[in-house]
Amino acid sequence: MPIVKLVILGSGGAVPKADRMLPAIYLEDWLGHRVLLDAGEGVQYRLLQIGISPSSLTLIAVTHMHEDHILGLPGLVITSKFLGGRLKVLAPKSMHGALSKLGVEVADSYEEERFKIKCVEVCHTVDACGWLIQWDVGYKLDLSKTSGLPKWALTELIKGKPVKIGDRIITPEEVADPAHKRFKYLLYTGDTAPCPEMWKKVGSVDVLIHEATFADDVSPSKAHEEGHSTVADAIEAARALNAQVLILTHVSARYPDKSRHRELASRISPPPYIYIPEDFETLLVKL
Amino acid sequence: MPIVKLVILGSGGAVPKADRMLPAIYLEDWLGHRVLLDAGEGVQYRLLQIGISPSSLTLIAVTHMHEDHILGLPGLVITSKFLGGRLKVLAPKSMHGALSKLGVEVADSYEEERFKIKCVEVCHTVDACGWLIQWDVGYKLDLSKTSGLPKWALTELIKGKPVKIGDRIITPEEVADPAHKRFKYLLYTGDTAPCPEMWKKVGSVDVLIHEATFADDVSPSKAHEEGHSTVADAIEAARALNAQVLILTHVSARYPDKSRHRELASRISPPPYIYIPEDFETLLVKL
Repeated sequence: MPIVKLVILGSGGAVPKADRMLPAIYLEDWLGHRVLLDAGEGVQYRLLQIGISPSSLTLIAVTHMHEDHILGLPGLVITSKFLGGRLKVLAPKSMHGALSKLGVEVADSYEEERFKIKCVEVCHTVDACGWLIQWDVGYKLDLSKTSGLPKWALTELIKGKPVKIGDRIITPEEVADPAHKRFKYLLYTGDTAPCPEMWKKVGSVDVLIHEATFADDVSPSKAHEEGHSTVADAIEAARALNAQVLILTHVSARYPDKSRHRELASRISPPPYIYIPEDFETLLVKL
Repeated sequence: MPIVKLVILGSGGAVPKADRMLPAIYLEDWLGHRVLLDAGEGVQYRLLQIGISPSSLTLIAVTHMHEDHILGLPGLVITSKFLGGRLKVLAPKSMHGALSKLGVEVADSYEEERFKIKCVEVCHTVDACGWLIQWDVGYKLDLSKTSGLPKWALTELIKGKPVKIGDRIITPEEVADPAHKRFKYLLYTGDTAPCPEMWKKVGSVDVLIHEATFADDVSPSKAHEEGHSTVADAIEAARALNAQVLILTHVSARYPDKSRHRELASRISPPPYIYIPEDFETLLVKL
Protein backbone atom coordinates (compact mmCIF):
# COMPACT_ATOMS: atom_id res chain seq x y z
CA MET A 1 0.00 0.00 0.00
CA PRO A 2 1.39 3.43 -0.90
CA ILE A 3 2.17 4.82 2.51
CA VAL A 4 4.75 7.25 3.80
CA LYS A 5 6.17 7.31 7.30
CA LEU A 6 7.37 10.67 8.58
CA VAL A 7 9.30 11.08 11.82
CA ILE A 8 9.63 14.69 12.88
CA LEU A 9 13.20 14.95 14.17
CA GLY A 10 13.15 18.70 14.71
CA SER A 11 10.11 20.97 14.54
CA GLY A 12 11.88 24.18 15.57
CA GLY A 13 13.75 26.87 13.69
CA ALA A 14 16.67 29.27 14.19
CA VAL A 15 17.13 28.67 17.93
CA PRO A 16 16.27 25.36 19.58
CA LYS A 17 14.26 24.65 22.71
CA ALA A 18 14.81 21.59 24.89
CA ASP A 19 11.85 19.84 23.25
CA ARG A 20 12.00 21.51 19.83
CA MET A 21 15.16 20.80 17.91
CA LEU A 22 16.39 22.25 14.66
CA PRO A 23 14.88 21.21 11.31
CA ALA A 24 15.02 17.58 10.22
CA ILE A 25 12.34 15.16 9.05
CA TYR A 26 12.91 11.49 8.33
CA LEU A 27 10.77 10.12 5.50
CA GLU A 28 10.48 6.44 4.62
CA ASP A 29 8.19 5.26 1.83
CA TRP A 30 6.62 1.86 1.17
CA LEU A 31 9.19 1.25 -1.56
CA GLY A 32 12.05 1.46 0.94
CA HIS A 33 13.40 4.92 0.15
CA ARG A 34 14.82 6.70 3.16
CA VAL A 35 15.06 10.45 2.85
CA LEU A 36 16.23 13.02 5.34
CA LEU A 37 14.64 16.43 4.76
CA ASP A 38 17.01 19.07 6.17
CA ALA A 39 19.85 18.31 8.55
CA GLY A 40 19.75 20.49 11.66
CA GLU A 41 22.50 20.10 14.25
CA GLY A 42 22.58 16.75 16.02
CA VAL A 43 20.46 14.93 13.44
CA GLN A 44 22.84 11.97 13.42
CA TYR A 45 21.96 11.30 17.08
CA ARG A 46 18.26 11.61 16.39
CA LEU A 47 18.52 9.12 13.53
CA LEU A 48 20.35 6.72 15.86
CA GLN A 49 17.62 7.20 18.44
CA ILE A 50 15.02 6.00 15.95
CA GLY A 51 17.29 3.17 14.84
CA ILE A 52 18.37 4.54 11.44
CA SER A 53 21.99 4.36 10.33
CA PRO A 54 23.09 7.40 8.28
CA SER A 55 24.64 5.02 5.76
CA SER A 56 21.21 3.52 5.02
CA LEU A 57 19.80 6.84 3.76
CA THR A 58 18.84 7.02 0.09
CA LEU A 59 19.55 10.74 0.16
CA ILE A 60 19.54 13.91 2.21
CA ALA A 61 17.73 16.94 0.80
CA VAL A 62 18.60 20.28 2.39
CA THR A 63 16.52 23.34 1.62
CA HIS A 64 19.00 26.20 2.02
CA MET A 65 22.27 27.22 3.55
CA HIS A 66 21.07 28.72 6.84
CA GLU A 67 22.85 27.10 9.74
CA ASP A 68 19.77 25.80 11.53
CA HIS A 69 19.06 23.57 8.51
CA ILE A 70 22.55 22.22 7.78
CA LEU A 71 24.79 22.06 10.86
CA GLY A 72 24.04 18.35 11.20
CA LEU A 73 25.56 17.58 7.79
CA PRO A 74 29.28 17.46 8.70
CA GLY A 75 28.65 14.93 11.47
CA LEU A 76 26.54 12.78 9.15
CA VAL A 77 29.29 12.87 6.52
CA ILE A 78 32.02 11.90 9.00
CA THR A 79 30.00 9.08 10.54
CA SER A 80 29.05 7.76 7.09
CA LYS A 81 32.72 7.71 6.11
CA PHE A 82 33.53 5.72 9.27
CA LEU A 83 30.81 3.28 8.24
CA GLY A 84 32.23 3.08 4.72
CA GLY A 85 29.38 4.90 2.96
CA ARG A 86 29.08 8.02 0.85
CA LEU A 87 26.13 10.34 1.22
CA LYS A 88 24.04 11.68 -1.63
CA VAL A 89 22.95 15.25 -0.86
CA LEU A 90 20.40 17.28 -2.79
CA ALA A 91 20.69 21.03 -2.31
CA PRO A 92 20.13 24.35 -4.08
CA LYS A 93 22.72 24.89 -6.83
CA SER A 94 24.41 27.73 -4.92
CA MET A 95 25.45 25.21 -2.24
CA HIS A 96 26.94 22.60 -4.56
CA GLY A 97 30.49 23.95 -4.48
CA ALA A 98 30.73 23.99 -0.70
CA LEU A 99 29.04 20.59 -0.35
CA SER A 100 31.38 18.94 -2.85
CA LYS A 101 34.27 19.90 -0.58
CA LEU A 102 32.63 17.84 2.18
CA GLY A 103 33.14 14.78 -0.01
CA VAL A 104 29.49 14.05 -0.75
CA GLU A 105 27.72 13.37 -4.03
CA VAL A 106 25.72 16.52 -4.82
CA ALA A 107 22.74 17.09 -7.11
CA ASP A 108 19.46 18.96 -7.20
CA SER A 109 17.26 16.07 -8.23
CA TYR A 110 17.13 12.29 -8.06
CA GLU A 111 15.10 9.82 -9.99
CA GLU A 112 14.26 6.14 -9.99
CA GLU A 113 11.53 4.29 -11.82
CA ARG A 114 8.77 5.05 -9.32
CA PHE A 115 10.34 7.76 -7.17
CA LYS A 116 11.44 11.25 -8.15
CA ILE A 117 12.50 14.21 -6.08
CA LYS A 118 13.31 17.65 -7.40
CA CYS A 119 13.94 21.20 -6.25
CA VAL A 120 11.19 23.77 -6.59
CA GLU A 121 12.27 27.31 -5.89
CA VAL A 122 10.58 28.80 -2.82
CA CYS A 123 10.45 32.38 -1.50
CA HIS A 124 13.05 32.79 1.23
CA THR A 125 15.80 35.34 1.91
CA VAL A 126 18.43 33.17 0.20
CA ASP A 127 18.47 30.66 -2.68
CA ALA A 128 16.20 27.91 -1.33
CA CYS A 129 14.58 24.70 -2.57
CA GLY A 130 11.32 23.17 -1.55
CA TRP A 131 11.55 19.43 -2.24
CA LEU A 132 8.82 17.89 -4.35
CA ILE A 133 8.58 14.11 -4.26
CA GLN A 134 6.60 12.26 -6.90
CA TRP A 135 5.63 8.62 -6.51
CA ASP A 136 4.26 6.44 -9.26
CA VAL A 137 1.65 4.42 -7.39
CA GLY A 138 0.49 2.72 -10.59
CA TYR A 139 -3.00 2.34 -12.05
CA LYS A 140 -6.09 1.19 -10.25
CA LEU A 141 -7.95 -1.18 -12.56
CA ASP A 142 -11.68 -0.99 -13.22
CA LEU A 143 -12.57 -4.63 -12.53
CA SER A 144 -15.60 -4.46 -14.82
CA LYS A 145 -13.18 -3.97 -17.71
CA THR A 146 -10.61 -6.63 -16.81
CA SER A 147 -12.63 -9.80 -16.30
CA GLY A 148 -11.00 -12.78 -17.96
CA LEU A 149 -7.51 -11.25 -18.08
CA PRO A 150 -4.73 -13.41 -16.60
CA LYS A 151 -3.06 -12.36 -13.36
CA TRP A 152 0.28 -11.50 -15.02
CA ALA A 153 -1.53 -9.10 -17.33
CA LEU A 154 -3.24 -7.35 -14.41
CA THR A 155 0.12 -6.93 -12.68
CA GLU A 156 1.63 -5.33 -15.79
CA LEU A 157 -1.37 -3.07 -16.34
CA ILE A 158 -1.27 -1.83 -12.73
CA LYS A 159 2.37 -0.88 -13.29
CA GLY A 160 1.32 1.16 -16.32
CA LYS A 161 2.52 -1.27 -19.00
CA PRO A 162 0.44 -2.37 -22.01
CA VAL A 163 -0.09 -6.13 -22.47
CA LYS A 164 -0.72 -8.32 -25.50
CA ILE A 165 -3.43 -10.97 -25.12
CA GLY A 166 -3.60 -12.99 -28.32
CA ASP A 167 -3.74 -10.37 -31.07
CA ARG A 168 -5.15 -7.68 -28.83
CA ILE A 169 -2.99 -4.98 -27.22
CA ILE A 170 -4.55 -3.60 -24.06
CA THR A 171 -3.27 -0.31 -22.64
CA PRO A 172 -3.65 0.56 -18.94
CA GLU A 173 -5.67 3.63 -19.85
CA GLU A 174 -8.36 1.40 -21.42
CA VAL A 175 -8.99 -0.60 -18.26
CA ALA A 176 -8.01 1.80 -15.46
CA ASP A 177 -10.26 3.68 -13.10
CA PRO A 178 -10.00 7.23 -14.51
CA ALA A 179 -10.71 8.74 -11.08
CA HIS A 180 -7.51 7.24 -9.66
CA LYS A 181 -4.39 9.39 -9.73
CA ARG A 182 -1.29 7.51 -10.85
CA PHE A 183 1.15 10.02 -9.40
CA LYS A 184 1.17 11.18 -5.81
CA TYR A 185 3.06 14.18 -4.49
CA LEU A 186 4.55 15.40 -1.26
CA LEU A 187 6.09 18.86 -0.97
CA TYR A 188 8.37 19.97 1.84
CA THR A 189 8.77 23.74 1.64
CA GLY A 190 11.57 24.43 4.08
CA ASP A 191 11.62 28.14 4.96
CA THR A 192 9.40 30.27 2.78
CA ALA A 193 7.12 33.26 2.65
CA PRO A 194 3.85 32.77 0.71
CA CYS A 195 5.02 31.86 -2.77
CA PRO A 196 2.26 32.02 -5.45
CA GLU A 197 4.73 31.56 -8.33
CA MET A 198 5.82 28.25 -6.77
CA TRP A 199 2.22 27.14 -6.15
CA LYS A 200 1.46 27.78 -9.80
CA LYS A 201 4.50 25.82 -10.98
CA VAL A 202 3.80 22.84 -8.69
CA GLY A 203 0.04 22.61 -9.30
CA SER A 204 -1.37 20.06 -6.85
CA VAL A 205 0.15 17.96 -4.09
CA ASP A 206 -1.29 15.34 -1.77
CA VAL A 207 0.76 16.12 1.30
CA LEU A 208 2.24 19.51 2.15
CA ILE A 209 4.83 19.96 4.88
CA HIS A 210 4.93 23.72 5.30
CA GLU A 211 6.76 25.99 7.67
CA ALA A 212 4.70 28.01 10.15
CA THR A 213 7.37 29.99 11.95
CA PHE A 214 4.76 32.34 13.38
CA ALA A 215 1.23 32.03 14.77
CA ASP A 216 -0.78 35.27 14.51
CA ASP A 217 1.04 37.58 16.92
CA VAL A 218 3.52 38.71 14.25
CA SER A 219 2.26 40.84 11.37
CA PRO A 220 2.15 38.98 8.04
CA SER A 221 4.29 41.67 6.42
CA LYS A 222 7.05 41.25 9.02
CA ALA A 223 6.89 37.46 8.68
CA HIS A 224 7.11 37.67 4.88
CA GLU A 225 9.94 40.19 5.00
CA GLU A 226 11.93 37.63 7.01
CA GLY A 227 11.10 35.00 4.39
CA HIS A 228 8.71 33.13 6.70
CA SER A 229 5.04 32.21 6.99
CA THR A 230 2.28 32.38 9.57
CA VAL A 231 -0.22 29.59 10.22
CA ALA A 232 -2.73 31.39 7.96
CA ASP A 233 -0.13 31.61 5.18
CA ALA A 234 0.54 27.87 5.38
CA ILE A 235 -3.19 27.14 5.16
CA GLU A 236 -3.47 29.43 2.15
CA ALA A 237 -0.61 27.53 0.50
CA ALA A 238 -2.26 24.17 1.23
CA ARG A 239 -5.49 25.36 -0.37
CA ALA A 240 -3.70 26.77 -3.40
CA LEU A 241 -1.96 23.40 -3.80
CA ASN A 242 -5.12 21.33 -3.13
CA ALA A 243 -3.28 19.48 -0.35
CA GLN A 244 -5.39 17.03 1.64
CA VAL A 245 -2.86 16.87 4.45
CA LEU A 246 -0.94 19.83 5.84
CA ILE A 247 1.85 19.32 8.35
CA LEU A 248 3.15 22.43 10.08
CA THR A 249 6.72 22.69 11.34
CA HIS A 250 9.59 25.20 11.92
CA VAL A 251 7.79 26.75 14.88
CA SER A 252 9.73 29.65 16.40
CA ALA A 253 11.25 29.26 19.87
CA ARG A 254 9.30 32.40 20.87
CA TYR A 255 6.33 30.09 21.48
CA PRO A 256 6.70 28.06 24.69
CA ASP A 257 4.38 25.45 23.16
CA LYS A 258 2.34 24.99 19.99
CA SER A 259 -1.07 25.67 21.51
CA ARG A 260 -1.68 28.90 19.59
CA HIS A 261 -0.70 27.21 16.32
CA ARG A 262 -3.13 24.40 17.14
CA GLU A 263 -5.92 26.78 18.05
CA LEU A 264 -5.57 28.62 14.75
CA ALA A 265 -5.49 25.33 12.85
CA SER A 266 -8.60 24.04 14.63
CA ARG A 267 -10.68 26.90 13.23
CA ILE A 268 -10.32 25.54 9.70
CA SER A 269 -12.76 23.09 8.12
CA PRO A 270 -10.77 20.43 6.31
CA PRO A 271 -9.37 19.98 3.80
CA PRO A 272 -6.59 20.39 4.56
CA TYR A 273 -6.37 18.10 7.57
CA ILE A 274 -3.77 19.87 9.66
CA TYR A 275 -1.18 18.19 11.91
CA ILE A 276 1.25 20.06 14.15
CA PRO A 277 3.56 17.35 15.43
CA GLU A 278 6.01 17.40 18.31
CA ASP A 279 9.61 16.22 17.95
CA PHE A 280 9.91 12.45 17.56
CA GLU A 281 6.25 12.01 16.65
CA THR A 282 5.62 9.63 13.77
CA LEU A 283 3.00 10.27 11.12
CA LEU A 284 1.82 7.55 8.76
CA VAL A 285 0.26 9.09 5.69
CA LYS A 286 -1.57 6.97 3.13
CA LEU A 287 -1.03 8.40 -0.32
CA MET B 1 31.91 23.91 50.51
CA PRO B 2 34.34 23.41 47.61
CA ILE B 3 32.35 21.12 45.40
CA VAL B 4 32.21 20.58 41.67
CA LYS B 5 29.22 19.34 39.73
CA LEU B 6 29.96 17.48 36.52
CA VAL B 7 27.27 16.50 34.03
CA ILE B 8 28.54 14.13 31.38
CA LEU B 9 26.87 15.35 28.18
CA GLY B 10 28.72 12.98 25.86
CA SER B 11 30.89 10.04 26.88
CA GLY B 12 31.60 8.77 23.37
CA GLY B 13 34.22 9.55 20.76
CA ALA B 14 34.59 9.72 16.97
CA VAL B 15 31.25 8.09 16.11
CA PRO B 16 28.20 8.36 18.36
CA LYS B 17 25.85 5.69 19.60
CA ALA B 18 22.21 6.38 20.49
CA ASP B 19 23.12 6.51 24.20
CA ARG B 20 26.70 7.74 23.87
CA MET B 21 27.02 11.15 22.32
CA LEU B 22 30.12 13.05 21.27
CA PRO B 23 32.42 14.69 23.82
CA ALA B 24 31.06 17.37 26.13
CA ILE B 25 31.15 17.76 29.91
CA TYR B 26 29.39 20.51 31.83
CA LEU B 27 31.23 21.64 34.95
CA GLU B 28 29.79 23.97 37.57
CA ASP B 29 31.76 24.89 40.68
CA TRP B 30 30.60 26.16 44.06
CA LEU B 31 31.76 29.66 43.10
CA GLY B 32 29.31 29.78 40.19
CA HIS B 33 31.66 29.18 37.28
CA ARG B 34 30.07 27.29 34.41
CA VAL B 35 32.49 25.61 32.07
CA LEU B 36 31.82 23.45 29.05
CA LEU B 37 34.66 21.01 28.38
CA ASP B 38 34.61 20.16 24.65
CA ALA B 39 31.67 20.86 22.38
CA GLY B 40 30.60 17.78 20.43
CA GLU B 41 27.74 18.10 17.95
CA GLY B 42 24.37 18.89 19.47
CA VAL B 43 25.76 20.14 22.79
CA GLN B 44 23.46 23.17 22.73
CA TYR B 45 20.45 20.83 22.95
CA ARG B 46 22.02 18.86 25.77
CA LEU B 47 22.67 22.05 27.72
CA LEU B 48 19.03 23.06 27.21
CA GLN B 49 17.96 19.63 28.42
CA ILE B 50 19.77 20.21 31.73
CA GLY B 51 18.41 23.76 31.93
CA ILE B 52 21.59 25.67 31.07
CA SER B 53 21.51 28.60 28.64
CA PRO B 54 24.65 28.84 26.47
CA SER B 55 24.81 32.54 27.29
CA SER B 56 25.28 31.72 30.98
CA LEU B 57 28.55 29.85 30.38
CA THR B 58 31.71 31.35 31.86
CA LEU B 59 33.70 29.73 29.08
CA ILE B 60 34.00 26.80 26.72
CA ALA B 61 37.31 24.92 26.62
CA VAL B 62 37.88 22.71 23.59
CA THR B 63 40.77 20.28 23.53
CA HIS B 64 41.59 19.98 19.83
CA MET B 65 40.26 20.49 16.35
CA HIS B 66 38.91 17.01 15.61
CA GLU B 67 35.28 17.23 14.53
CA ASP B 68 33.86 15.02 17.27
CA HIS B 69 35.02 17.59 19.85
CA ILE B 70 33.97 20.82 18.15
CA LEU B 71 30.99 20.43 15.81
CA GLY B 72 28.70 21.77 18.53
CA LEU B 73 30.51 25.12 18.59
CA PRO B 74 28.88 26.87 15.60
CA GLY B 75 25.39 26.20 16.96
CA LEU B 76 26.38 27.49 20.40
CA VAL B 77 27.82 30.64 18.84
CA ILE B 78 24.70 31.32 16.74
CA THR B 79 22.31 30.72 19.62
CA SER B 80 24.39 32.91 21.94
CA LYS B 81 24.27 35.72 19.39
CA PHE B 82 20.47 35.39 19.21
CA LEU B 83 20.45 35.69 23.01
CA GLY B 84 22.72 38.73 22.84
CA GLY B 85 25.80 37.10 24.36
CA ARG B 86 29.35 36.49 23.22
CA LEU B 87 31.13 33.26 24.00
CA LYS B 88 34.60 32.97 25.47
CA VAL B 89 36.38 29.95 24.00
CA LEU B 90 39.66 28.48 25.20
CA ALA B 91 41.46 26.35 22.63
CA PRO B 92 44.92 25.28 21.48
CA LYS B 93 46.78 28.17 19.81
CA SER B 94 46.60 26.52 16.37
CA MET B 95 42.80 26.90 16.44
CA HIS B 96 42.69 30.58 17.41
CA GLY B 97 42.62 31.94 13.85
CA ALA B 98 39.67 29.80 12.77
CA LEU B 99 37.77 30.42 16.01
CA SER B 100 38.17 34.20 15.78
CA LYS B 101 36.33 34.05 12.46
CA LEU B 102 33.36 32.54 14.32
CA GLY B 103 33.11 35.80 16.26
CA VAL B 104 34.08 34.44 19.67
CA GLU B 105 36.61 35.69 22.20
CA VAL B 106 39.55 33.27 22.04
CA ALA B 107 42.34 32.54 24.52
CA ASP B 108 44.28 29.63 25.93
CA SER B 109 43.86 30.48 29.59
CA TYR B 110 41.50 32.34 31.90
CA GLU B 111 42.00 33.58 35.40
CA GLU B 112 40.00 35.06 38.24
CA GLU B 113 40.94 35.48 41.88
CA ARG B 114 40.10 31.95 42.95
CA PHE B 115 39.69 30.16 39.62
CA LYS B 116 42.27 29.53 36.92
CA ILE B 117 42.19 27.35 33.86
CA LYS B 118 45.07 26.76 31.49
CA CYS B 119 46.15 24.55 28.62
CA VAL B 120 48.58 21.72 29.27
CA GLU B 121 49.89 20.06 26.16
CA VAL B 122 48.80 16.42 25.85
CA CYS B 123 49.96 13.64 23.50
CA HIS B 124 47.49 13.35 20.63
CA THR B 125 47.85 13.22 16.85
CA VAL B 126 47.27 16.99 16.52
CA ASP B 127 47.98 20.06 18.65
CA ALA B 128 45.84 19.39 21.73
CA CYS B 129 45.24 20.87 25.17
CA GLY B 130 44.31 19.14 28.36
CA TRP B 131 42.56 21.70 30.57
CA LEU B 132 43.90 22.14 34.08
CA ILE B 133 41.63 23.97 36.50
CA GLN B 134 43.01 25.34 39.74
CA TRP B 135 40.77 26.49 42.57
CA ASP B 136 41.91 28.47 45.57
CA VAL B 137 39.85 26.86 48.34
CA GLY B 138 41.58 28.96 51.00
CA TYR B 139 43.22 27.89 54.25
CA LYS B 140 41.84 25.54 56.83
CA LEU B 141 42.58 27.03 60.24
CA ASP B 142 44.05 25.07 63.13
CA LEU B 143 41.52 26.02 65.81
CA SER B 144 44.05 25.46 68.59
CA LYS B 145 46.00 28.40 67.15
CA THR B 146 43.12 30.82 66.55
CA SER B 147 41.26 30.96 69.87
CA GLY B 148 40.35 34.49 70.81
CA LEU B 149 40.58 35.88 67.27
CA PRO B 150 37.51 37.82 66.05
CA LYS B 151 35.32 36.35 63.35
CA TRP B 152 36.34 38.89 60.68
CA ALA B 153 39.97 37.93 61.22
CA LEU B 154 39.18 34.23 60.76
CA THR B 155 37.36 35.02 57.51
CA GLU B 156 40.36 36.93 56.16
CA LEU B 157 42.83 34.26 57.25
CA ILE B 158 40.81 31.52 55.55
CA LYS B 159 40.99 33.55 52.34
CA GLY B 160 44.77 33.64 52.67
CA LYS B 161 45.07 37.23 53.86
CA PRO B 162 47.18 38.35 56.86
CA VAL B 163 45.36 40.29 59.62
CA LYS B 164 46.49 42.87 62.15
CA ILE B 165 45.19 42.40 65.70
CA GLY B 166 46.44 45.27 67.83
CA ASP B 167 50.17 45.43 67.05
CA ARG B 168 50.39 41.82 65.99
CA ILE B 169 50.34 40.76 62.32
CA ILE B 170 49.11 37.21 61.91
CA THR B 171 49.74 35.40 58.62
CA PRO B 172 47.53 32.52 57.47
CA GLU B 173 50.54 30.23 57.43
CA GLU B 174 51.00 30.69 61.20
CA VAL B 175 47.51 29.49 62.09
CA ALA B 176 46.62 27.16 59.21
CA ASP B 177 46.47 23.39 59.24
CA PRO B 178 49.64 22.53 57.26
CA ALA B 179 48.08 19.26 56.05
CA HIS B 180 45.38 21.15 54.18
CA LYS B 181 46.02 21.95 50.53
CA ARG B 182 45.04 25.49 49.56
CA PHE B 183 44.86 24.76 45.84
CA LYS B 184 42.78 22.02 44.29
CA TYR B 185 43.12 20.77 40.74
CA LEU B 186 41.01 19.09 38.12
CA LEU B 187 42.50 17.98 34.82
CA TYR B 188 40.47 17.07 31.74
CA THR B 189 42.78 15.41 29.24
CA GLY B 190 40.66 15.27 26.10
CA ASP B 191 42.18 12.78 23.65
CA THR B 192 45.64 11.60 24.58
CA ALA B 193 48.05 8.71 24.57
CA PRO B 194 49.99 8.16 27.82
CA CYS B 195 51.87 11.43 28.27
CA PRO B 196 54.66 11.28 30.91
CA GLU B 197 56.03 14.70 29.97
CA MET B 198 52.60 16.21 30.75
CA TRP B 199 52.30 14.28 34.03
CA LYS B 200 55.67 15.67 35.08
CA LYS B 201 54.72 19.23 34.20
CA VAL B 202 51.34 19.06 35.98
CA GLY B 203 52.53 17.28 39.14
CA SER B 204 49.45 16.37 41.18
CA VAL B 205 45.74 16.76 40.63
CA ASP B 206 42.72 15.92 42.76
CA VAL B 207 40.35 14.91 40.01
CA LEU B 208 41.37 13.47 36.65
CA ILE B 209 38.94 13.16 33.77
CA HIS B 210 40.82 10.95 31.34
CA GLU B 211 39.92 9.41 28.03
CA ALA B 212 39.70 5.62 27.83
CA THR B 213 38.87 5.08 24.18
CA PHE B 214 39.77 1.41 24.45
CA ALA B 215 39.33 -1.37 27.02
CA ASP B 216 41.94 -4.17 26.69
CA ASP B 217 41.03 -5.73 23.33
CA VAL B 218 43.19 -3.27 21.38
CA SER B 219 46.95 -3.46 21.75
CA PRO B 220 48.43 -0.56 23.71
CA SER B 221 50.80 0.25 20.84
CA LYS B 222 47.91 0.57 18.38
CA ALA B 223 45.95 2.72 20.84
CA HIS B 224 48.95 4.99 21.42
CA GLU B 225 49.71 5.27 17.73
CA GLU B 226 46.18 6.65 17.26
CA GLY B 227 46.81 9.12 20.08
CA HIS B 228 44.49 7.32 22.49
CA SER B 229 44.55 5.44 25.78
CA THR B 230 43.31 2.17 27.20
CA VAL B 231 41.72 1.79 30.64
CA ALA B 232 45.11 0.65 32.00
CA ASP B 233 46.78 3.75 30.53
CA ALA B 234 44.25 6.04 32.21
CA ILE B 235 44.83 4.33 35.55
CA GLU B 236 48.59 4.72 35.10
CA ALA B 237 48.07 8.44 34.42
CA ALA B 238 45.88 8.82 37.53
CA ARG B 239 48.57 7.19 39.67
CA ALA B 240 51.34 9.31 38.15
CA LEU B 241 49.24 12.40 38.92
CA ASN B 242 48.22 11.23 42.43
CA ALA B 243 44.56 11.65 41.48
CA GLN B 244 42.07 10.51 44.11
CA VAL B 245 39.22 10.46 41.62
CA LEU B 246 39.46 9.19 38.05
CA ILE B 247 36.57 9.65 35.63
CA LEU B 248 36.78 7.73 32.36
CA THR B 249 35.16 8.98 29.19
CA HIS B 250 35.54 9.02 25.35
CA VAL B 251 34.60 5.34 25.11
CA SER B 252 34.72 4.03 21.54
CA ALA B 253 31.46 3.09 19.81
CA ARG B 254 33.01 -0.36 19.19
CA TYR B 255 31.84 -1.25 22.71
CA PRO B 256 28.08 -1.84 22.90
CA ASP B 257 28.23 -0.92 26.59
CA LYS B 258 30.88 -0.01 29.17
CA SER B 259 30.89 -3.32 31.02
CA ARG B 260 34.43 -4.29 30.00
CA HIS B 261 35.71 -0.84 31.01
CA ARG B 262 33.98 -1.27 34.37
CA GLU B 263 35.33 -4.77 34.87
CA LEU B 264 38.89 -3.60 34.27
CA ALA B 265 38.38 -0.65 36.62
CA SER B 266 36.96 -2.86 39.36
CA ARG B 267 40.21 -4.82 39.56
CA ILE B 268 42.04 -1.77 40.92
CA SER B 269 42.38 -0.99 44.63
CA PRO B 270 41.73 2.71 45.10
CA PRO B 271 43.09 5.27 44.88
CA PRO B 272 42.10 6.27 42.34
CA TYR B 273 38.37 5.84 42.84
CA ILE B 274 37.19 5.21 39.30
CA TYR B 275 33.85 6.32 37.81
CA ILE B 276 32.68 5.45 34.31
CA PRO B 277 29.55 7.54 33.85
CA GLU B 278 26.80 7.27 31.27
CA ASP B 279 25.55 10.27 29.29
CA PHE B 280 23.53 12.71 31.40
CA GLU B 281 24.83 11.30 34.69
CA THR B 282 25.68 13.96 37.24
CA LEU B 283 28.70 13.59 39.51
CA LEU B 284 29.18 15.77 42.57
CA VAL B 285 32.84 15.79 43.55
CA LYS B 286 34.01 17.34 46.81
CA LEU B 287 37.41 18.90 46.33
